[in-house]
Parts: sequence; structure tokens; C-alpha cells
Amino acid sequence: MTDNIEFIPNCPLPIAEYPAILLAHGGGGKLMHHLIEKIFMAAFENEKLKERHDSAVIDLAGKRLAFTTDSYVVHPLFFPGGDIGKLAVYGTVNDLAMSGAKPVFLSAGFIIEEGLPTEMLWRIAQSMKQAALEAKVEIVTGDTKVVDHGKGDGVFINTSGIGIIEHNLRIAPSRVRPGDAIIINGDIGRHGIAIMAVREGLEFESTIASDCRPLHAQVARLLEAGAVVHCLRDLTRGGLGTALVEIAEAAHQHIHVDENAIEVRQDVQGACEILGFDPLYVANEGRFVVFVPESQVGLALEALRGMTPDSEARLIGRVGGGTPGIVTLKTKIGVSRIVDMLSGEQLPRIC
Amino acid sequence: MTDNIEFIPNCPLPIAEYPAILLAHGGGGKLMHHLIEKIFMAAFENEKLKERHDSAVIDLAGKRLAFTTDSYVVHPLFFPGGDIGKLAVYGTVNDLAMSGAKPVFLSAGFIIEEGLPTEMLWRIAQSMKQAALEAKVEIVTGDTKVVDHGKGDGVFINTSGIGIIEHNLRIAPSRVRPGDAIIINGDIGRHGIAIMAVREGLEFESTIASDCRPLHAQVARLLEAGAVVHCLRDLTRGGLGTALVEIAEAAHQHIHVDENAIEVRQDVQGACEILGFDPLYVANEGRFVVFVPESQVGLALEALRGMTPDSEARLIGRVGGGTPGIVTLKTKIGVSRIVDMLSGEQLPRIC
Repeated sequence: MTDNIEFIPNCPLPIAEYPAILLAHGGGGKLMHHLIEKIFMAAFENEKLKERHDSAVIDLAGKRLAFTTDSYVVHPLFFPGGDIGKLAVYGTVNDLAMSGAKPVFLSAGFIIEEGLPTEMLWRIAQSMKQAALEAKVEIVTGDTKVVDHGKGDGVFINTSGIGIIEHNLRIAPSRVRPGDAIIINGDIGRHGIAIMAVREGLEFESTIASDCRPLHAQVARLLEAGAVVHCLRDLTRGGLGTALVEIAEAAHQHIHVDENAIEVRQDVQGACEILGFDPLYVANEGRFVVFVPESQVGLALEALRGMTPDSEARLIGRVGGGTPGIVTLKTKIGVSRIVDMLSGEQLPRIC
Repeated sequence: MTDNIEFIPNCPLPIAEYPAILLAHGGGGKLMHHLIEKIFMAAFENEKLKERHDSAVIDLAGKRLAFTTDSYVVHPLFFPGGDIGKLAVYGTVNDLAMSGAKPVFLSAGFIIEEGLPTEMLWRIAQSMKQAALEAKVEIVTGDTKVVDHGKGDGVFINTSGIGIIEHNLRIAPSRVRPGDAIIINGDIGRHGIAIMAVREGLEFESTIASDCRPLHAQVARLLEAGAVVHCLRDLTRGGLGTALVEIAEAAHQHIHVDENAIEVRQDVQGACEILGFDPLYVANEGRFVVFVPESQVGLALEALRGMTPDSEARLIGRVGGGTPGIVTLKTKIGVSRIVDMLSGEQLPRIC
């Protein structure tokens, strides 16, 4: 039965160059993409993986479903605006929403480090309960593992999710077209800075809270308004910059964005300067970009109006007019520069 | 929107008694059941979780699907007869099969410890590829995280799975009836002993290999033969003993099994004696029990004939005739004893 499997005879990553996995291999940048392409895509290749989308779109029994998975290893477990439990529910809900699916069922797999205070686990479970109610999903199956003290870090949570696709659009990077407008649903950088501030013990005038929240309702509003959505992408690991580069590459299109249109709160900007971060690459957990035809900008902005606390959706850029696969940014001082993926690690264990 | 959520005001596990999570909370025995009931079932309660089955059976778009998740933290990563990758594919395939579902799609989430040799990750991915081909499932979505050296243990893998239920039976512990016959598909204890032998550096005359293999084809044979299957359960963490106690409790039925009918290979028995283990509680990764009406024993045994390498399916016991919720075992010397769940930890990180 397995006679015809073609096994790759040798590891396709140059072992001499990368003998071992680095933290940066999980950072959402170039190294991670390299690892995924060479090790996982090469082994598991199929049409669904090739879409390189947040969720796989699968046909089952004549219906279109979205299926996705994410493991959460955020450190610390609790942070302003959220905790690992909330993140684990909303993160997977959002990956489903980015396929235009209505999230329905979640699984929850816990890898607990021996010695985790029992009450902390209970608080995380309660937080997941609240998040699941908020996002209108049911956690229907689960698994619990415990590893020795010093072989984990408190708790890691995997959530996988199933959603139903009730429209006839195909929402994917490959659908992006020249002339598409790019809309973002709010300001960037809050989640990453909230985590880093706790981790580094930084104090600001006011606490910067994570933007962690479910995005299914915003996507539903766009679809209900009749927007012909070409692509959706949430701006988690690697931030807005990485998301745009991924889409430009997958769509073989040029993307141009205007830095003046991208909102960064003053406290987030200040923290980025102290930490030496570019907000373009800082993770968000409640932000996404929408690609729609130019003619639908008004309709899409109207659909998203009032949906993001303390911020609003904005038009930030357009597709086309330059080299395919490349993202350019018009900076605040008016010059144009290329936006690349980070090669190293900006913020490890941000989600 | 969340005003009506009833939050449990305090952690329902006695904090004074269990201030922190113990390794035994992941061992498949009493402590793990206690943790799951008090922390997770209490938070996420819904009808699907209440079935306490290997997979959730969900209705989506008029079709019945099975949905399941498992994280794999086995140590060591490679062992005779398998590795963590093979285990992660077959384990989740088997959980779907235990609902009588045909496994179709898998997700794969990797939590990699910084410093894992790249080639090891590649070998694991290749092993998953082979296992997925063997089990006829596609790995359609994935996630990669990296944690700092010393905050993980090589690699942990979560696989979640979706299967289609194509028959009209309801296969679940609650369907078990007095008079049901209990059939097992082969000998017990190989997986647990294979792992422990490597971990403890034990040498036997011949290497004991894990029984790790996919069970979907065996379940399909049973269903194609027309067996009215009441319940299926694979015998992983906690082994045959724990599985029977779980089913007796969930079904509110008495279960009686005959030790003479339960095959334990001589080398496995010998290793159990050296290590002080009861084979009844040792994990398997290619064994399951089937509950069918008495009249179908011949049909079920015939369907399973020749399906397990180096072993055969056997009738090992019956349902009814004693106290509901209790499992009794007629030992080799002819006395009857109660089979209980282990309270502590027999074999940590076996899967």
C-alpha cells in the first residue's frame, strides 16, 4: 500500500547551516517560512496546504467547511487585556473567520507542566468558557497531558476549530487582484507591546492592553453587507508587515501601503522606540486586513464602522502598480521603501 | 452579551489538597478524571462533552461528523515500532475510528524546543507522511511554534481530526447493554513496555516493539460485516483496565472479564514483572475493545480475523450480572476481583 510513497531521501534544509531549530524558527519571519516549506509542506503536500491560508477549506458531504489549528505558548500566561485561554479561543476563531467561515466547534488540548498551580488552570478554563460564549462556539472535545517540571512552561494550549462557509466567495491570497483596496480594522501593535511590557517589567503612564478579541462578527458584517471580499488575514505573529509580504508572494501581486494611514497609538509608538521594535512587525490579536475591489471601499468601511474599540477601520493601501511579490511602504517622510519579512526573531512566544 | 454566564466562583478542586498539578494528573487514572471533571467539564459543559467519548459527534449541514484532538508528549521521541510522528497520526485516526467514523482530515500543530536537531524534525515529518498515507488521511492545516531551550522537550505534537460517520449506529459508552459481549483485537501491553524498555535501558532477549498502528480498517470491517456495534474504545493511556472502568461507569453497567482470555505475550509479562506493572494498565496503541450483542460474537471475530499482526481477536468478557459501574476480573487462579482505576501514575508520558 505504501510502495509508491516518494520519500525525500535527505533533509531538504541544509543541516550544516541549520543543525538545530532556533527560537527564530517560530517567529513568523523568513526562517519560519523556510522551515515550514522545507520540512512540513514538502512532507504533507496537498492542494489545501498549498493555499497557505489561515484555515484549510474542505469539502465534506457537499458542504464547505473551514478547519484550522493553532498551539498557544504565550509567555506570560496572563497579560493586560487577556490570558492564554482567551487567546487560544479567539485566535482559532479568528483563523476560521479569515476564511469567511462562521466558527462553530473548537477542540482544546492542554499540555500542562507539573507544578502549575491548580487555581491558575481553573482561571484559564473559566476564561476560555467566557471567550467561547462571546464567540458563540462550543468546545466539544479535549485532551489533557502533563509533562515533568522543567519540560514545559506552565501550560501550552492547542485549539483546533471547525467553521461553516455559508457564502459562495473564495476568500484566499490567490484571489487578490490588481486594483484591490486594502483596509485594516484598527490601530496596530497593542498585543505585542502588552506582552513585552509585562515580560520586561516596563511601566508606562497607562497600561497598554492587548487588542485580543474575536473577529467573526466583523467578517460577518462585511459579508452581510455584500462586500466581494477577495482576501482576509489577521495580523498576529509577524504583524501587518509579514502578513502583507505573505499575501503579496502568494498572490504574485505588488502591494503598496501608506504609513500615514496606519494608526499606531502614541503609547505603543513610544514603547516600540524604547524596545527597538518596528510596529509594522508587532503582533496583534484583534486586527485584520481586508482586500476588496476599489469600488467597495465605502461599503466595507461602513460595515466595519464602530466595530473596533477605540479605533476605526481605514484604507491603507492598494494592490498593483509595481513588482509582483513585493510590498512597498510610503513612509511618513514621503519616501518609498520595500517591506521585507524579518529574518530573525522580534518577539518570541507572543501567542 | 456575557451577562448571563454563570461563573463558578471558586476553583472546584480542593486547592488545599491539590495546590498544583502533578504528573499523575496526566496518567489516565483517577486523578486525571478528577481534574477533567472539575476543571474542564465544569467550564465547557455541553451535551457532546458529556458523552465522554474519544471523539465528539457533531451534526453539521445535515451530516454526522466526528471531531477529536490529542497532544502527543511521548518520551523518548523514537522507540521500537514507532516514533512521536507515527503515534500522532495513528492516535488521532484511532480516536475517530472509535466513533465508527472514517478518518478524513488531520491538522498538525508542532511545539518545538529550541535546539531540536533539524534532521530529527524532518524524520518525524516523513514518518507522519507515511502514516497519513497508510491511514488514508490528509494533513490539511498546521501550526509551528518554538519555545526556549528548557521550556519544552524536543517536540510536542497536537493532531486534531475530522471523520465522516457513514452508518446509522450510535456508538458510545451509553449504548452498552446487559448481555453485550466484549471482544479485544489482540494481546495487550506492547506499547507501554516498548517505551519503558528504552527509557530504563532494559534489554530483553528480543526487542519488544510498540503495537502502534491504525485501527480504521478493523472498524470498517466490523461495520461492513453488519455488526451492530454498541461501543468501541482504544486501549491507550491507562490500558484495558482503565478503559473498561470508564465504560462501566459511563454506561452504568457491570462488566466482567476473564484474565485467562486476555493475551499477554511472555516477554511483555516478564517485563511487567521486572518493572512492577500490571499489564491490565499498560498502554497500547493498536488495540481496542468492541461491545456487541452476544449473538454477534461469531460475526465480529470473523470480521477481525487476520487483522492484527502476531495476534488474534478474542472474546474476553460480558456485560451485566453484577453491580452497575463496577468491573470484575476472574483471575488466572479462578478468584474474582474488582478492577479499579489507578489513582497514581504508572507510566508518565507514554503517548
